[in-house]
Amino acid sequence: MSVGIFNRVLTGLLVFVLFSSVSFASSLKLTRDAENLEAYISHPKQLAVAKEKLAKLEAKTGKKPNLVIMLVDDMGWGDLGVYGGGVAIGAPTPVMDRLANAGLRLTSAYSQPTCTPTRASLLTGRLPIRHGIYRPPVFGEKGGLADEITLAELLSEVGYRTAVFGKWHLGKDPGQQPQNQGFDESIVMYDGSPKIFLSTDYKDKLREIYYDPELKAYIQNIIKKNPGLMKANKGEKAELALAINWDNAASLDQRFADYSVDFISRMTTQDDPFFLFHSFTKVHEPSLPTKEFAGKSPAKQVFQDSLMEVDAIVARIISALKENNLEENTLVLLLSDNGPDEDKFPDMGHTPFRGAKGGTWDGGVRVPAIFWWPGMIDPMRSSDGLFDFTDIFNTLLTVAGAQGKIPVDRYIDGVDQTSFLLTENGESNRNAVFMYTLNHLTAVRWREWKKHLMIAVIGDGTYAGGIGMKNEARIVRTPGQNIMNLYIDNKERVSVGAEKSWTMPFFGRIIKNHRQSLVKYPPKKKVLTMP
Amino acid sequence: MSVGIFNRVLTGLLVFVLFSSVSFASSLKLTRDAENLEAYISHPKQLAVAKEKLAKLEAKTGKKPNLVIMLVDDMGWGDLGVYGGGVAIGAPTPVMDRLANAGLRLTSAYSQPTCTPTRASLLTGRLPIRHGIYRPPVFGEKGGLADEITLAELLSEVGYRTAVFGKWHLGKDPGQQPQNQGFDESIVMYDGSPKIFLSTDYKDKLREIYYDPELKAYIQNIIKKNPGLMKANKGEKAELALAINWDNAASLDQRFADYSVDFISRMTTQDDPFFLFHSFTKVHEPSLPTKEFAGKSPAKQVFQDSLMEVDAIVARIISALKENNLEENTLVLLLSDNGPDEDKFPDMGHTPFRGAKGGTWDGGVRVPAIFWWPGMIDPMRSSDGLFDFTDIFNTLLTVAGAQGKIPVDRYIDGVDQTSFLLTENGESNRNAVFMYTLNHLTAVRWREWKKHLMIAVIGDGTYAGGIGMKNEARIVRTPGQNIMNLYIDNKERVSVGAEKSWTMPFFGRIIKNHRQSLVKYPPKKKVLTMP
Repeated sequence: MSVGIFNRVLTGLLVFVLFSSVSFASSLKLTRDAENLEAYISHPKQLAVAKEKLAKLEAKTGKKPNLVIMLVDDMGWGDLGVYGGGVAIGAPTPVMDRLANAGLRLTSAYSQPTCTPTRASLLTGRLPIRHGIYRPPVFGEKGGLADEITLAELLSEVGYRTAVFGKWHLGKDPGQQPQNQGFDESIVMYDGSPKIFLSTDYKDKLREIYYDPELKAYIQNIIKKNPGLMKANKGEKAELALAINWDNAASLDQRFADYSVDFISRMTTQDDPFFLFHSFTKVHEPSLPTKEFAGKSPAKQVFQDSLMEVDAIVARIISALKENNLEENTLVLLLSDNGPDEDKFPDMGHTPFRGAKGGTWDGGVRVPAIFWWPGMIDPMRSSDGLFDFTDIFNTLLTVAGAQGKIPVDRYIDGVDQTSFLLTENGESNRNAVFMYTLNHLTAVRWREWKKHLMIAVIGDGTYAGGIGMKNEARIVRTPGQNIMNLYIDNKERVSVGAEKSWTMPFFGRIIKNHRQSLVKYPPKKKVLTMP
Repeated sequence: MSVGIFNRVLTGLLVFVLFSSVSFASSLKLTRDAENLEAYISHPKQLAVAKEKLAKLEAKTGKKPNLVIMLVDDMGWGDLGVYGGGVAIGAPTPVMDRLANAGLRLTSAYSQPTCTPTRASLLTGRLPIRHGIYRPPVFGEKGGLADEITLAELLSEVGYRTAVFGKWHLGKDPGQQPQNQGFDESIVMYDGSPKIFLSTDYKDKLREIYYDPELKAYIQNIIKKNPGLMKANKGEKAELALAINWDNAASLDQRFADYSVDFISRMTTQDDPFFLFHSFTKVHEPSLPTKEFAGKSPAKQVFQDSLMEVDAIVARIISALKENNLEENTLVLLLSDNGPDEDKFPDMGHTPFRGAKGGTWDGGVRVPAIFWWPGMIDPMRSSDGLFDFTDIFNTLLTVAGAQGKIPVDRYIDGVDQTSFLLTENGESNRNAVFMYTLNHLTAVRWREWKKHLMIAVIGDGTYAGGIGMKNEARIVRTPGQNIMNLYIDNKERVSVGAEKSWTMPFFGRIIKNHRQSLVKYPPKKKVLTMP
């Protein structure tokens, strides 16, 4: 909801240097434009280039750029061919590979460890500790966006036509629904996966529900309140668009693609730019490929079939942009919302890193991130520059010329990465990535270094990544300076904190500054409640 | 040495089907052309296409194709950008990435677990159990090729000009030296790494030698016998080309590149085709980048600097081919000899898989393999088709029109993969990969399935991959049907043997047939002897 939108005070910007500026190179000097904004590494030259590119394009097209986010669910860093997956995991991904090769592939882009926190963070530019969504609500639990200010709201304010199709998972209450969070059009599933709608008739996977009449009735009652896809235009009451059941659950993503393709084609006839948030239910378990894709992957497993279906759907959306001559003026993001969900073996994705969905080993939070914008983003680029999903908020607002809309009444964790994306060999403007597990700051990445403040352990041993991530896991404080170098140890196995003790004061300062921001802008309590 | 070269009996080929042919699809029907040759999956159509392509090219160029193998030392599957490394590990590899994108990238190519066995296998088409080189000789140990028939010998017989520059590590005795193993020209280091030449003056890493006069003298005596790069033309006595020391050790690979570039440029003026085996000492530890590359990588670590130097050297060799207008008629292979050597942390490569150099978890044996041949191999191809390094022997002989030279007096484990490489979407002709640790058959891959007959354990627990691979490791028999699906579990963590028991008889038959070949062609005893 549009609560507290303020114009940014452009005069008298609070610019200060966090680290001593005398002896450090520019990447160690941070700039902070206002007290409520995250400090960043300033790159004036590349920023000027990016701004000029944007201005030239606007002069040519006569409008602001369109923005498309494709967010795949539970897809791992190692699932796409260009990240070492594809044919190697029995699921060729030629379309997404071509998209990456025609644009920019990031190798150190960080999501949150689970679905809902990631969605909330990219739409608000704020970490879970600030927006209060620490973990996904499941099976009737309540919680989502409410008094947050979303990207869709701000883009609406500057004239964008906004739409979301697919998985929402950001709350079911009216105030949390997409039509009340800035989206002009929406056809969404409020829940985290189609599984809940199938759960009372899921004989092979949920026998404990199927054969328990009382539990079955309880869940049927939850489903009854939101029986499937809900459709709403801005401010309207949501209406049921489709009751989800075994007959249509597999085809949901193709249906969402229908909506997105239709939306894109309608946008060609109007003057305003658009923001499309296309949110897959795949490849979250239970992977249910349509008939056309069942058994189509070389692996012949449901995950791989579904991944290939995602690839084909990406093709549908990109084709729609091309057919409508929109690719020149549309920035496309292809992302995953967290690492593979290894609890769901074998229906799960892949990561070369340690850990998986749910934790802050890189396996849980370091995800595919591809940026495609012909003519504006150089092809065949790949970069290990740091990128946090909160940056999407700031960056898309800048691209839309709406940076002045960024709220001043709350802390924004994102930084503007426009210049990183749009300039040749652009460098990231982000200094550090803060990784939370629930409301615990569990890890911090700075450059190639990662400090673990807390780690997940299973039983008596350090959690080594793998099956059973969350089962029986406890989060415990690390004993000392647990610092790893991800360039030499991307499986996060060896702490080099003692040997590389020079990094400690840097981490110390970074963490201290972050914690100070939480003093000035106190964390929000968990917004999740029981059903 | 040219012992026992026979013409293949072309009439009366023994062709039989190993599996019942009634109900199986063609990939389950194997063909065996002779008792001493490995059975393969026959693809008559793609073979016809490949043969036609080769014939057309020969008609155009008037000679057989040139063959170039670039073998990098200890580079992991996850080190190159196109395999998920590159910028992600702080070492951009643009040249090798472009080479891969302009050709074929294999994702299931298997070497042997260590250097020397791999080198021997690709030059002989035979597994270590047959050529007798189970592990690398180190610090004065003896052992290498002797009564084996090498690719270089057979290519020489059909008129190829053959050369090897770089690390040899296939024996130091005269009979084992490259000029007596089929190479017209050679400038090589017999040892496994430049380390031995530096070891008596290696204060920071080998203090135990540096400060022990007796040990120092013993090793100095070993070095005295082969003090560095040895140069020899076919049949001649090897002469010292360069004594290796701290002043020149870092530049060895640039020097080898000089030799290869010079060789390539000389080859343009002669009628015969050539075979160049360019064998890097990098990125084996101790990684010693030249001054130009020291600190050049974003990681600023020696491994990454050295990997970037390898990338630049690949550029030099490819440029030499292009400048001499040879790329149309030259098949280029870019390979690594085994997985990353995790015992040498942090000076080591990367793999997304379990395990590392020295073992038969995929981390030890599944390596980068890129095939580049403009006009003959389609660009932007990647394939998960099975490829064993022994296949290089058969494939290069076929490309050279010398398949009739394949020995008939010994077992050849390689299969001809020409049709796999040269046809659009070609499929592998290999049925299974046999993985040995020393003389133990420890694992077998068939399709996406891998059966572990024996595994490496450390202490009381299953070896999980990682630092300290070989230290204290024991190889023990697996308790049951330890079968993994590499498409859903590329980290090899979960045996699905019981659930996927249908795979057991297939593995049973594959292993039985392999063992029968060892009855008919008894294994060779270890050729390695103490210094």
